[in-house]
Amino acid sequence: MIDKKKQITVAIDGLGGDRGIGTVIGAMRFALALYPNLRLLVFGNNELLEGIEKQKIDSSRYVFYKNSLMVPQDASVKDVMSVYLNSSMAQAIQSVMNKEADAVVSNGGTGPLVCLARHFLKQNTPYHPALAARMPTGPNSCSLMLDLGANAETQEKDLLGFAKLGAIAYQAQFNATNPTVALLNVGTEQGKGSKVIQRARELIVEDKTINFTGFIEANSIFRGNVDVIVSDGFTGNIALKAAEGVASLFANASGIRKFFARMARPDWLLPWQFNGSILLGVNGIVIKSHASAGNEALAVAMVEAARYSQSSIIEDLNKAFN
Amino acid sequence: MIDKKKQITVAIDGLGGDRGIGTVIGAMRFALALYPNLRLLVFGNNELLEGIEKQKIDSSRYVFYKNSLMVPQDASVKDVMSVYLNSSMAQAIQSVMNKEADAVVSNGGTGPLVCLARHFLKQNTPYHPALAARMPTGPNSCSLMLDLGANAETQEKDLLGFAKLGAIAYQAQFNATNPTVALLNVGTEQGKGSKVIQRARELIVEDKTINFTGFIEANSIFRGNVDVIVSDGFTGNIALKAAEGVASLFANASGIRKFFARMARPDWLLPWQFNGSILLGVNGIVIKSHASAGNEALAVAMVEAARYSQSSIIEDLNKAFN
Repeated sequence: MIDKKKQITVAIDGLGGDRGIGTVIGAMRFALALYPNLRLLVFGNNELLEGIEKQKIDSSRYVFYKNSLMVPQDASVKDVMSVYLNSSMAQAIQSVMNKEADAVVSNGGTGPLVCLARHFLKQNTPYHPALAARMPTGPNSCSLMLDLGANAETQEKDLLGFAKLGAIAYQAQFNATNPTVALLNVGTEQGKGSKVIQRARELIVEDKTINFTGFIEANSIFRGNVDVIVSDGFTGNIALKAAEGVASLFANASGIRKFFARMARPDWLLPWQFNGSILLGVNGIVIKSHASAGNEALAVAMVEAARYSQSSIIEDLNKAFN
Repeated sequence: MIDKKKQITVAIDGLGGDRGIGTVIGAMRFALALYPNLRLLVFGNNELLEGIEKQKIDSSRYVFYKNSLMVPQDASVKDVMSVYLNSSMAQAIQSVMNKEADAVVSNGGTGPLVCLARHFLKQNTPYHPALAARMPTGPNSCSLMLDLGANAETQEKDLLGFAKLGAIAYQAQFNATNPTVALLNVGTEQGKGSKVIQRARELIVEDKTINFTGFIEANSIFRGNVDVIVSDGFTGNIALKAAEGVASLFANASGIRKFFARMARPDWLLPWQFNGSILLGVNGIVIKSHASAGNEALAVAMVEAARYSQSSIIEDLNKAFN
C-alpha cells in the first residue's frame, strides 16, 4: 500500500495516447483525488494546459512543462534518437533521470518508450529490459507477467533475465519472499516447445536463486497457480491481447446482454484496474499505459507508478546485479 | 454443407483423449444421430467396445477394430516411430491412407498425431503441415487460423506456406474466392515484430496468389476483419489458449454469476461448437480434437471431418502444389 504521508512525484507524458487530452485531464483528476500526497509533472502542449486550467485542477498539485513534440507510436529507433530526444516523452523520462520525479508514465508507443528509457536512465541489470504487468487471478490476487513486448527477439539468456527481474519485482511490490516462477509454453511436459524455450528452462533450473515450478500454459495465466509468468515479448504481447479480445466480446455486448455481461463478470475482473506495465531493467521507474486507456485506466497507471515509487524495486535490482 | 446422401466414413482414434471412453461413446451417438449418412471406423480397446455395445449403438453404423495400444499425449518422435506404429492412432490414420476412411479424428497428442500423419499420409505440399481451426467471429461467420501448434519452430518460409495452405482451405470449406490473409503480430504498423515476421511479410507480399491485408493484432482474432490468420505454431497455440482461459473465467462462474454468464454470452460463442482443427499439408484429412473435449465437442470434430471430406480440400492442395 501507498504511504499516504510521503509525497510522490510522477511525471506524465501528456501527448502519448490515442484518446487525446481529455483522457489525460480526466486521469489527473482521478489520481489526484485518490492520493492526496501525489504531485504530477505534466509534459504537454498548450491545448493540454488550457484544458487543465479550465477544469480547475488545483495548481499546487502539478507543474506543467510546455512541450508540443509528440513521438508517433511507431517511430523507428533511428527517428527517436535523432528527432525526438526533446519530445514530451523524452523530457518526462529525463525528469526521473534528474530526480525531479520518482516515476514516469507514458501511453506512447512501446518502441520509443523502451528506446528513450534505455538512453536516459541506462540499464541496471545485465539483461534486456522487459515490460511486466499484473494479471488478475482473483479478488485480492494477481500474478506478474513479463515480457509483454519490450523485445521483438528473445533468446534463452533473455528469458533467464526476465525470470530474475520478475521475481525481484514481485518481491518488491507484494512484499513476498521466494516467489514461484513459471515459463509460458505450449504444454507443461518437459519436452514441449521451441529450442529457445528448452534451453531457457535449463538455464533457469540451474539458477538456484529462482523458485522455478516449470512450464505453464496460456489458459492458466489467470488462475493464479504461480507468482511470476515468464514469456518472450512477442508471445506475451499476443497472449495478453488475445485475452483482452475475448474479454471485450463480453464487455462490448449490447442491449440486455450488456447488463448480463456486467453481472457475470467476476468482481475482480475489471480490465481498467490492471492498466500499467513497468519497464524492468532500467535505472528508474517507467510505467507504460495502454495507448487506448481511458480516464480511469490511465489514472490506475499513475497509481501503479506511485506504488512502485514507494517500493524498493530499483534498490533491489541494483543490489542484485551491481 | 454436408450432402446427406453421400456416405462418409470417418475413422476415430478411440484411445486418445483425457476423458475416457464415455466421451467417445457419447460423441459417436451425437454424430451418428446428426448425420444419417455417417459411418464410423472405431479403433479402441475391449472396454470401449463393451461400452458401445451396452449403449446399443446401431451396429450397421460402425466397424470396430480392436487395438489397445494408446499413444501417450507427450510421446517423443523416437518413441512414436518405434513403439507406436501399430497404435490405435496409427491404425486410424492408416485407414485413411488405405482409402477405407475419408478422414480421421483423434484427441491424442499433437506431436504424435503430426508425426504419424506425416509418416503414413505423406506431405502433399512443399511446406510444413500446420493445424488450422475456425475462430468464431459472429452468428454465421468465422475466420480460419493457423498454425495452432503443429510446429515448435517456424521460419519465414513456413509462414508463407501457412498463408497458402490457409487460403486454399478457406476457399474449399467456405466456397469463397480470393480470401483475405493477415499475419498475426504485436502491432499493425509495417516495422513491428520480429525479423522472421518482417521477412515473412516480404515473402507473402511478393506472392501474388495471396490476398494479403497486412498485420493483425491478437485482440482482433474474433472480430472477423480477415478470412485467414497466419501465425507461427508457438504463438498461435498460446494465443488460442489465452483466449480460452478468459472465456472459461466467464463460463466457470458459479452460482448466480453462472446464469448471468450464460445470458451474456453471444449466441454464437459456444466453445464446443469450434472443436476440431485440420492438419493441412498431408495427403488426407486429419482432424485434431482437444484432448479435454467433452461429448458434444468431440462430435463436432467428427462433423468437421465429414465436412472436409465433402470438400475439395485435398484435390485443391494437390492441384496447387503438384
